[in-house]
Amino acid sequence: MKSLPWSGMALGRFYLFSLVLGTLGSLCVLFTIYWAQHWRGGFRWDGSSRMFNWHPVLMVAGMVVLYGAASLVYRLPQAWLGPKLPWKLLHAALHLAAFVLAVLGLVAVFDFHRHNHIAHLYSLHSWLGIAAVALFACQWFLGFAIFLLPWASLWLRSVLKPLHVFLGATILSLSTASVISGINEKLFFSLKNATAPYSSLPPEARFANSTGMLVVIFGVLVLYVLLASSWKRPEPGLLSDRQPLLQEGE
Amino acid sequence: MKSLPWSGMALGRFYLFSLVLGTLGSLCVLFTIYWAQHWRGGFRWDGSSRMFNWHPVLMVAGMVVLYGAASLVYRLPQAWLGPKLPWKLLHAALHLAAFVLAVLGLVAVFDFHRHNHIAHLYSLHSWLGIAAVALFACQWFLGFAIFLLPWASLWLRSVLKPLHVFLGATILSLSTASVISGINEKLFFSLKNATAPYSSLPPEARFANSTGMLVVIFGVLVLYVLLASSWKRPEPGLLSDRQPLLQEGE
Repeated sequence: MKSLPWSGMALGRFYLFSLVLGTLGSLCVLFTIYWAQHWRGGFRWDGSSRMFNWHPVLMVAGMVVLYGAASLVYRLPQAWLGPKLPWKLLHAALHLAAFVLAVLGLVAVFDFHRHNHIAHLYSLHSWLGIAAVALFACQWFLGFAIFLLPWASLWLRSVLKPLHVFLGATILSLSTASVISGINEKLFFSLKNATAPYSSLPPEARFANSTGMLVVIFGVLVLYVLLASSWKRPEPGLLSDRQPLLQEGE
Repeated sequence: MKSLPWSGMALGRFYLFSLVLGTLGSLCVLFTIYWAQHWRGGFRWDGSSRMFNWHPVLMVAGMVVLYGAASLVYRLPQAWLGPKLPWKLLHAALHLAAFVLAVLGLVAVFDFHRHNHIAHLYSLHSWLGIAAVALFACQWFLGFAIFLLPWASLWLRSVLKPLHVFLGATILSLSTASVISGINEKLFFSLKNATAPYSSLPPEARFANSTGMLVVIFGVLVLYVLLASSWKRPEPGLLSDRQPLLQEGE
């Protein structure tokens, strides 16, 4: 095992940043759960508004937090050395788990709509959100076909990799924008009470607005590590970078 | 004058992409104007809802379209050769114009609120939007102080440049997310009519939703050219990169 090409200080900074990201991501999910539990009646899987409550939780957990963590797999110093294949498998598996959470989140809102005779997919929030999930599905299958299965040429992989990274970052940005418009819309729906409307910023509004801002900060920090930080796996030359599914090597 | 280090085909592709971006950006602004003019009563500067209509138009024009164009100044092939200073001045001036449009857009909505006794800055849309404009102000002043005024060291500039680019991209992403949540919120406010609610997707809803999706596509394409394309000004070494305001050179 070669030693990591990082100084102790750089490594320390990376782990500090990871700790911040992990804490922020957990807070995003916990805050969304607390919002639904404390102010919106908690969770059921029965077509009621308590079924709807799964929607924000699963979308934040799947399309933002787990998606963000899955995106950063190659930034771990442990992924810098040795075969890339196990990290590719982890990257694909975590993204698949994120996708499953997102699909469950969509089932929650579609079922809620059906039970309550509400139209599907009319708001700009829903247009953007469904576009993000559809792009995610395409990205996952393309990534699987091109970067995991063994038949794509090295040339094709090297051409598509920057696009894969950029499309990945785009999907996270669209998801974050969907979350913002979704929280905003839900607060306008829910806080109609004349004594404490949204515009009077009752505790629920402050809390949910803050949750939205946390999601934005988390998303921006993930994109920073992904696109702008120096914590990148060094390219070991095209040849050794090729590690298709059925042919593992150093 | 040295010849451009681009092949004719690469140049053609760049100009085609610029044409697409220019068209899309213009459509974003024109569609927002048409929405306000055709369905929302047009424009006045009198505190009424017609004053509010300036808000979406000025924010889309300033914080997204002109901001996006200003960000891409260094991607123009003409900016690749010769002194960098004129391009820095153009970059700063266009961003200043974008900032002025954004401030006017804020005046429009604050004045509308004041005239109609509506609370300021309560929605998540407004929290995110005001954060984007505040970050933009910081970014402009830091950029001016560090990259235009002559006193910053080369070391400081080279350290801050990737952060400047990343923060610039972040601000555009936050603005786009604000625009999405803003259009979504406005449609929920306006389309309350029982015969044609937002959920029945009347023509106005389809048109404004599409405008929002256009803004997202424009933002993503700008970020692509900024962060992921190969159309970047080559770094001519740190020394010749230093062209402070009062000391121009090749």
